[in-house]
Amino acid sequence: MSDPRDDLRPGESAVEAPAPSDAVLRFIGRIETPWTTRNECPHHGDPVAGPVCKVIVDDLWGDALTGIERHSHLQILYWMFQARRDLVLLSPRARPEPTGTFSLRAPTRPNPIASSIVALVERQGSVLLVRGLDCIAGTPLLDIKSSQAK
Amino acid sequence: MSDPRDDLRPGESAVEAPAPSDAVLRFIGRIETPWTTRNECPHHGDPVAGPVCKVIVDDLWGDALTGIERHSHLQILYWMFQARRDLVLLSPRARPEPTGTFSLRAPTRPNPIASSIVALVERQGSVLLVRGLDCIAGTPLLDIKSSQAK
Repeated sequence: MSDPRDDLRPGESAVEAPAPSDAVLRFIGRIETPWTTRNECPHHGDPVAGPVCKVIVDDLWGDALTGIERHSHLQILYWMFQARRDLVLLSPRARPEPTGTFSLRAPTRPNPIASSIVALVERQGSVLLVRGLDCIAGTPLLDIKSSQAK
Repeated sequence: MSDPRDDLRPGESAVEAPAPSDAVLRFIGRIETPWTTRNECPHHGDPVAGPVCKVIVDDLWGDALTGIERHSHLQILYWMFQARRDLVLLSPRARPEPTGTFSLRAPTRPNPIASSIVALVERQGSVLLVRGLDCIAGTPLLDIKSSQAK
């Protein structure tokens, strides 16, 4: 899917990338948040003061949530389905000069997989209530992991 | 690809999942480590004392590394290509009872995307020398991000 931004900002750069075809993903559920457009989304999720969002896991994978209540924090991977995938240099508002995609966490990247650490507020069956997400409502869910010890 | 383990351990459980076809990935490079089989791999990467490994980015994406030297730590996403994708309950050696896939960080998961925080030792062109990986040599690379502030 194409990015709503058709034009590059000054200094930004894209490549002619071959069609992605090396591996396939299956969506395992979806994320519900208060935000319906990318412009509304916060820049970073806030696991402390952010609004409670829903991580809705498809019934097929329900058993994979066994024991999840043990964790105060989880890592959520999701698919930024609106992001273009050919950008190599980006000009974020906060930086004076174009910066490489891999030096940033912007959604526009070759494989638009987002990773967020969230606080688990409550489990309701196959639905997790969490704080700390920053994506739009309806975002496809890819994975849930126990949060990496650091 | 199938897991070398053909049999489930007691208490483990798999589901009949449809073929994954919701989104496609492109590999952007590969990872070279000292380990050639899964059994040799450490359980967790160690960004301090772990061996230096190579993250080799395909030339197409070289410009996306611009500014990466600014970061002491990076988040690496990679594809655990040997892991089976249908397991919902796992019996890790360290736990007495079967635990849900999403409560763990095991490679066997619906979308076998691994996420590691690594220390950046040195950049050599399109190759990053890093500490903190735990995967086998030849693992496909999916993404590099600046490490999330926590």
